[in-house]
Amino acid sequence: MKALVYHSPDNISLENIPMPKIMLSTDAIVRISTTTICGTDLHILKGDVPTIKDGRVLGHEGVGIVEEVGKDVTSFKKGEKVLISLITSCGRCSFCKKGMYSHCKNGGWLLGNSLDGTQAEYVRIPFADNGLYLLPPDADEEAAVMLSCILPTGLECGTIKGEVQPGDIIAIVGAGPVGLATLLTSKLFSPSKIIMIDIDDNRLEVARSFGATNTVNSADGKAYEKVMLLTDNLGVDVVIEAVGLSDTFDICQSIIAPGGHIANVGVHGKPVSLKLEKLWSKNITLTTRLVDAGTTSLLLKMVLFGKLDANKLVSHHFEMKDILKAYDTFKNAAHNHAVKVIIRNKDF
Amino acid sequence: MKALVYHSPDNISLENIPMPKIMLSTDAIVRISTTTICGTDLHILKGDVPTIKDGRVLGHEGVGIVEEVGKDVTSFKKGEKVLISLITSCGRCSFCKKGMYSHCKNGGWLLGNSLDGTQAEYVRIPFADNGLYLLPPDADEEAAVMLSCILPTGLECGTIKGEVQPGDIIAIVGAGPVGLATLLTSKLFSPSKIIMIDIDDNRLEVARSFGATNTVNSADGKAYEKVMLLTDNLGVDVVIEAVGLSDTFDICQSIIAPGGHIANVGVHGKPVSLKLEKLWSKNITLTTRLVDAGTTSLLLKMVLFGKLDANKLVSHHFEMKDILKAYDTFKNAAHNHAVKVIIRNKDF
Amino acid sequence: MKALVYHSPDNISLENIPMPKIMLSTDAIVRISTTTICGTDLHILKGDVPTIKDGRVLGHEGVGIVEEVGKDVTSFKKGEKVLISLITSCGRCSFCKKGMYSHCKNGGWLLGNSLDGTQAEYVRIPFADNGLYLLPPDADEEAAVMLSCILPTGLECGTIKGEVQPGDIIAIVGAGPVGLATLLTSKLFSPSKIIMIDIDDNRLEVARSFGATNTVNSADGKAYEKVMLLTDNLGVDVVIEAVGLSDTFDICQSIIAPGGHIANVGVHGKPVSLKLEKLWSKNITLTTRLVDAGTTSLLLKMVLFGKLDANKLVSHHFEMKDILKAYDTFKNAAHNHAVKVIIRNKDF
Amino acid sequence: MKALVYHSPDNISLENIPMPKIMLSTDAIVRISTTTICGTDLHILKGDVPTIKDGRVLGHEGVGIVEEVGKDVTSFKKGEKVLISLITSCGRCSFCKKGMYSHCKNGGWLLGNSLDGTQAEYVRIPFADNGLYLLPPDADEEAAVMLSCILPTGLECGTIKGEVQPGDIIAIVGAGPVGLATLLTSKLFSPSKIIMIDIDDNRLEVARSFGATNTVNSADGKAYEKVMLLTDNLGVDVVIEAVGLSDTFDICQSIIAPGGHIANVGVHGKPVSLKLEKLWSKNITLTTRLVDAGTTSLLLKMVLFGKLDANKLVSHHFEMKDILKAYDTFKNAAHNHAVKVIIRNKDF
Repeated sequence: MKALVYHSPDNISLENIPMPKIMLSTDAIVRISTTTICGTDLHILKGDVPTIKDGRVLGHEGVGIVEEVGKDVTSFKKGEKVLISLITSCGRCSFCKKGMYSHCKNGGWLLGNSLDGTQAEYVRIPFADNGLYLLPPDADEEAAVMLSCILPTGLECGTIKGEVQPGDIIAIVGAGPVGLATLLTSKLFSPSKIIMIDIDDNRLEVARSFGATNTVNSADGKAYEKVMLLTDNLGVDVVIEAVGLSDTFDICQSIIAPGGHIANVGVHGKPVSLKLEKLWSKNITLTTRLVDAGTTSLLLKMVLFGKLDANKLVSHHFEMKDILKAYDTFKNAAHNHAVKVIIRNKDF
Repeated sequence: MKALVYHSPDNISLENIPMPKIMLSTDAIVRISTTTICGTDLHILKGDVPTIKDGRVLGHEGVGIVEEVGKDVTSFKKGEKVLISLITSCGRCSFCKKGMYSHCKNGGWLLGNSLDGTQAEYVRIPFADNGLYLLPPDADEEAAVMLSCILPTGLECGTIKGEVQPGDIIAIVGAGPVGLATLLTSKLFSPSKIIMIDIDDNRLEVARSFGATNTVNSADGKAYEKVMLLTDNLGVDVVIEAVGLSDTFDICQSIIAPGGHIANVGVHGKPVSLKLEKLWSKNITLTTRLVDAGTTSLLLKMVLFGKLDANKLVSHHFEMKDILKAYDTFKNAAHNHAVKVIIRNKDF
Repeated sequence: MKALVYHSPDNISLENIPMPKIMLSTDAIVRISTTTICGTDLHILKGDVPTIKDGRVLGHEGVGIVEEVGKDVTSFKKGEKVLISLITSCGRCSFCKKGMYSHCKNGGWLLGNSLDGTQAEYVRIPFADNGLYLLPPDADEEAAVMLSCILPTGLECGTIKGEVQPGDIIAIVGAGPVGLATLLTSKLFSPSKIIMIDIDDNRLEVARSFGATNTVNSADGKAYEKVMLLTDNLGVDVVIEAVGLSDTFDICQSIIAPGGHIANVGVHGKPVSLKLEKLWSKNITLTTRLVDAGTTSLLLKMVLFGKLDANKLVSHHFEMKDILKAYDTFKNAAHNHAVKVIIRNKDF
Repeated sequence: MKALVYHSPDNISLENIPMPKIMLSTDAIVRISTTTICGTDLHILKGDVPTIKDGRVLGHEGVGIVEEVGKDVTSFKKGEKVLISLITSCGRCSFCKKGMYSHCKNGGWLLGNSLDGTQAEYVRIPFADNGLYLLPPDADEEAAVMLSCILPTGLECGTIKGEVQPGDIIAIVGAGPVGLATLLTSKLFSPSKIIMIDIDDNRLEVARSFGATNTVNSADGKAYEKVMLLTDNLGVDVVIEAVGLSDTFDICQSIIAPGGHIANVGVHGKPVSLKLEKLWSKNITLTTRLVDAGTTSLLLKMVLFGKLDANKLVSHHFEMKDILKAYDTFKNAAHNHAVKVIIRNKDF
């Protein structure tokens, strides 16, 4: 089958490799119809993710058709359309019992990481009963594939950990795909103002089309002053860090109001300076979270009932044969006005 | 009247000054019978608290008898025994409505700060209906004065923000008065293990007598290794920072288990390095809080019903005339095995 | 001044009575520009509310201009436009400290009950700092007066106590003004389905225009069967009782899913039969609540930011001189397609 | 093997029946060393539980040694000492994902109900990975068997649903085994008063030995008056119904303070009259719950760390050959001062 294979930093190719097989009785094999690329895949390309080895098939997002199930898979059968979650979970370890599926002792983020992933024609899904979600045969696949990773990330790590409440003034730092997914899901809780902060006007324009009530270009280093103007000098009730850099984290800690929440979503490579000399008395809550994908069913319900416009995240379309072009487009996202790029296997 | 007056760093004296008077109709004047010294008072002596001016009477903790009330004070009358809260609150601003009394727009921590305090024979209490608590005539004053500041601090900033739950393994970094107060209040939620971490064996010995199930001397820089041994390499569910230094904060972030809570209680003078490159994926919650004293009624009930042994915190006794000796003793707390020092006005 | 005065059941009249005066230093006098009628006022007319005495001015909802303030009112001054809350609260008793303002030891629902109310040209407001909300001079008064009672009731007693969450399937029993206010506020939390249940098709039609996704006419006694059809036989996650009768309560307990919430909003005059033989094992939460009006600021923010369409509740308009006609219209609400009737003092 | 077999109401006998066998790959067979009798078993004897058929082995509580495991059981192996939970759960249905294991679509309360139970020498445990808990080889089996059903019931349905908080005044109606288990677990949250209410002085005496701070004999119909005396006429913050009758439910709704919680634990056979005409305005929360046993790990930790004295519940001991005598003793619990009766298989 065709698959996108990683070899070394900046060295990936579309290759023919053997099809995956059922290895455990709880596995399923899914034939991928639609997949997409995550910001994490770009980190992998740069060599930032040491668990990725030469020969790994990338990708942890996908929609497809069940091709085969192990004999202990009870919830799915051949021919059903399914959504693949980025998280593999056993459902019975102490972390799974707490809903911390990302820390599952027998799972976590494995697809496109320590196991072959979804940017291929077929993929093996361990613990299939816990890692797949049934889709109606006529489900919109492009909307659905937004539920594999990006929308649960925005909802869980940003909106829920930030405890967005009706009437809150919130800010999101970073108008990339994850920031925009956070924006979409934050609207489920009716904040009164959504301030999007970024250094790129193109991205801020996209954010306004997603429902940002205010945008702030922070390229001039004056994010603090601009946000204070927008909030009667009170700061924001919730701020979500969706970049992963020291500078963007600094914006978050400067604009938070007393009693507020800072929800970190960004993947950080270095320590940051936490201004505890100012924050110790401000009654602040700061959270970090790896997406657990425990809200996938909820998000799927919202999409199927027309309450969440997941399709807004889709900006470009490619066929699998052109997946390297898709990567190029996504790498230069701001220039290309790209948010999420869809990759389709042609035979579907 | 006699009062302990601050002039400049390391320059305080016991002096005769005029008695305070009712200034607003919501004020009360309280004749102090028992007061004590807070770690914050030591910071003031070092000149660390810029809001303190020459001539200020120090102290924000006290028990006494109502001497006079303004005409709009409705809950108290002359002759009643009362507990004084460190927090002054108007009860009607937006912060008070949220229970964030420490950020009250018309109050906050004022006593012994921007207003004259309780280390005196008399004190003026603004918004007396909100800042005093009725005590039974025969109440144990030494236990009660522990509710002015230190026990609400331990409960609110440590135990409650840390979300201590039955069965949790918790650690407290810093076995000073605040750490010990946190320890006492944490027991209300039945953790399975309480690990106290400090660099002084005397203080750790005191901690064991307060109910610490395990103690760790971190002077050798091996707190992480020792805590891992005590927790099957899982780390702790909750860790409370009760010192306010970069090193102690580092211990906290190194020993926290995935999904855990770091509650900062310590007063920090400098930024700390937050290891987001490790923590971003650990589902951590980090909180800061200035004590709001919203739990004072609850704590008072616990003390009166014999469910909280506030007296354990009292280590030394002085008369008001010897308050400078009390300061000396408290300054060298570890050496003197001092926790909280009681100062009594002799005429009571 | 002109005022609507209650004498005995079904005996009210528009009369000239003396203007109210400041009685305590925390009072304010408000000149009413806009008021409205509550379902509770109809209960009063029937003689159902024993605290109402002959001579009482009715009404607990209103918007107006501050005419005079007592000397201890600090947040308002003459000439400001204000919203009047139905709830009077002292802000310092044990119930106020918990946010249970409706149970304030010195307040609660007093206006148009044990004190003269707002269906008049002027009204005296006790504890004015806590019972008034500043409006911008150009605020929409009709939208604002919906925040005196009906929208906080729907939000607090229905939506919040019912713990409506994104994706939930909810049902509201009773499409009267309170049911519709609950519907409006429930949308702040993005339920996936809102099923409105009533016995009157006119009211159900109104409910659909407010955003009900499904309506059920329960006049045939088949509400249970119809709701099961709409919910794949699972029942609803949240059901809100907005009528106050045994039959409507029965619908609630029949359609609730395991783990669900029943939020009672209706005023009940008699006990109901609680089917504990079925519910004991269903993990149900049943709540009651008198509106505390603690969410008024939040709702005001939502209205001012255009996030809550409070005006939708207004169906009819009258001048004060025609207030008896307004009562007639509101009494026959279903026939008149009436939701809330606005009464304006002409001089504004 | 020997087993206690139900045939028809009041017709049970100790018989020799075939040993259970592994039926599914996720099953385990456990050799029972210690079991006990639940109040529900007495209901079964009266014929109150229609799911019980002729020939069923009773019992849903037990401790034993793993005899054999199916090939997909990954957490347990032959020879390990285990605690058996009353709840069977698949771990992957929508109810399990919410922690509502009692409503598991593939499980729930099956042992001694629709499947053969634990009052036998061997039992088959479905979904063994989810239904067993590893015990240290030297664990106190009598304490451990209290975690199969009664302590999770008290903690989850009583203490947790009642939201017992430090300082609360709580009441428990019914001093039988479930009421006493609730009492033990409520102490984990440090209530200031625990009022036990029952009609039998013997049981109240036992309750005092468990830590009840006050007891009320309600046989004279004056529970309300007595509780008001104990609570300054305020009523209680939390009341737990642990009987299942209309009269005991009435006590609960009469003594609850505004803002309070009524947690129903009792199994009810008939509807009760809910006094909504009084409660509608009292901001009450009423809960029901079937035990989910999601707190078993926590309770086990508390027992192993010496923080929960589960042994206090054990009042009598029998050998398996005398299980009918054990039933007789438990049936006449008040007379025999019986709480929980232990039954041991002699060969251990």
